[in-house]
Amino acid sequence: MSFDLRTWMERAREEVEAALSQTLDAYLGELPEQLNEAMRYSLLAGGKRLRPLVVLAAAEAFAGAASRDNPAVMDAAIAIEMVHTYSLIHDDLPAMDNDDFRRGLPTSHRKFGEAMAILAGDALLTEVFAVLTRGSEPCRKDLCALFALHSGARGMVGGQVDDTTSEREDSVDFLDRVNRRKTGDLLALSAAAGGCAVGVDQGRIESLQRVGYLMGHAFQQWDDVLDVEGDPALMGKAAGNDAQQGKLTYPGLIGLDATRAAARQKIAEARSLIEPWMPRAQALMGLAGAMIDRRH
Amino acid sequence: MSFDLRTWMERAREEVEAALSQTLDAYLGELPEQLNEAMRYSLLAGGKRLRPLVVLAAAEAFAGAASRDNPAVMDAAIAIEMVHTYSLIHDDLPAMDNDDFRRGLPTSHRKFGEAMAILAGDALLTEVFAVLTRGSEPCRKDLCALFALHSGARGMVGGQVDDTTSEREDSVDFLDRVNRRKTGDLLALSAAAGGCAVGVDQGRIESLQRVGYLMGHAFQQWDDVLDVEGDPALMGKAAGNDAQQGKLTYPGLIGLDATRAAARQKIAEARSLIEPWMPRAQALMGLAGAMIDRRH
Repeated sequence: MSFDLRTWMERAREEVEAALSQTLDAYLGELPEQLNEAMRYSLLAGGKRLRPLVVLAAAEAFAGAASRDNPAVMDAAIAIEMVHTYSLIHDDLPAMDNDDFRRGLPTSHRKFGEAMAILAGDALLTEVFAVLTRGSEPCRKDLCALFALHSGARGMVGGQVDDTTSEREDSVDFLDRVNRRKTGDLLALSAAAGGCAVGVDQGRIESLQRVGYLMGHAFQQWDDVLDVEGDPALMGKAAGNDAQQGKLTYPGLIGLDATRAAARQKIAEARSLIEPWMPRAQALMGLAGAMIDRRH
Repeated sequence: MSFDLRTWMERAREEVEAALSQTLDAYLGELPEQLNEAMRYSLLAGGKRLRPLVVLAAAEAFAGAASRDNPAVMDAAIAIEMVHTYSLIHDDLPAMDNDDFRRGLPTSHRKFGEAMAILAGDALLTEVFAVLTRGSEPCRKDLCALFALHSGARGMVGGQVDDTTSEREDSVDFLDRVNRRKTGDLLALSAAAGGCAVGVDQGRIESLQRVGYLMGHAFQQWDDVLDVEGDPALMGKAAGNDAQQGKLTYPGLIGLDATRAAARQKIAEARSLIEPWMPRAQALMGLAGAMIDRRH
């Protein structure tokens, strides 16, 4: 029976949505109502759920389909979406990117006010570690350490700081560094966390991190490509946005063809790292391929 | 030899300052420079270091003076100060309390800009869990769970939300709830974390939490008293601030005498809980007493 990535993704996404919902329900009544509402609003606003899917796929690559029954795996998947969501809420704030809409809905601060958006972000970030420690598997402490490393000052938050405050350099090195921390770190974390949750050794954790970095980086480069030549109907936004806003992009620095080639090369490296883990790694292999050559 | 609380506090405070500094130094070079500077600025801006002292005192109550050699104890002490500091940075933001100064220095957003203040807070909160997981003692995961519980949506952040958004009720119940979450939760966490770091059982963790809540609550009530009748020279601010700002306070609701009595009664309960742990609990006993009957 051949592996169908689309079906795998749909099923995994449903499980993630259900687990997210259950987690928030478990807090109902323990939280100030408005806080619960604000956390729920952003966390359940949809999106690709790419990061949780990478967690599940990475766990499956080593522990097979049974990995989904390991509560640490789904908790890591939920937790990564909570990190991602908190970072979006804070990034959208007036003092940061000042965005009014995300995925077609008012951003958290537009809907609940700025104070609540700050606090909802803080709460989500803190609850990440409540979710990660709510089981007794031996991996739980290591998961906390991985999350703190990749999402904090030495990871995602550091990337945001670079993005917000550094003197911009029009160089590929600079853009690589920002993207590595902004997208790469969380995807590296996702892949590593999936492996960590099923108890793989340190060497494999490091390979998974590398796979995640490569996927995140290629994803970002392909987004830059789509921004230039994507179909607005599929993208949900006009093409050429980045260029108009004077944003630093790969096509702007090295051209479209070289950007596409760079992204494909990264995924080729990721695939060669995943190859020895086949056939159980077929979902991870499929997700890696889905980062590029996509239309939206 | 009689126990001298003042000497104990001075020595403990020096050790905490040194450990905080070392922790930040260890990150130098790994972080964007401005982020490191902003984290350092707020974390090393002084203050009573009350919460770390409670961690150390609680650990000492069960494991004696040797508890200071247990890295989990000092890491918990540093981590609690990081939580406290991040919450101050975010609370001071224009969208929250909009404060320009703290401890006589410009607040983080006044000095580094609002975006950096948001990110420095996020970074400090995330690094809390890096510090808590950087050792291998079995308590490390439990410490993460305790910190997430007391400082998140079901603890401190929830209290901030109540404070920021709830319809204010002029009742002691309402004020109790806000204070419990704002001050009580972090002191409960401090006491519980000290015990957790030296491996005490769940029953004692709960007693320590109760001791911490009582201390935090009494501390807050005594602050309200000092705001009415304190010596401005000792306080570093004018008396009567709260009343002028229309802030809900215990003296405003029940009068000065009843507020003093309520605080003293809480400390009496805390002392009776601590009593069976004497003589090793003398620092904790002393700190409990220092919450009240103070002049600044």
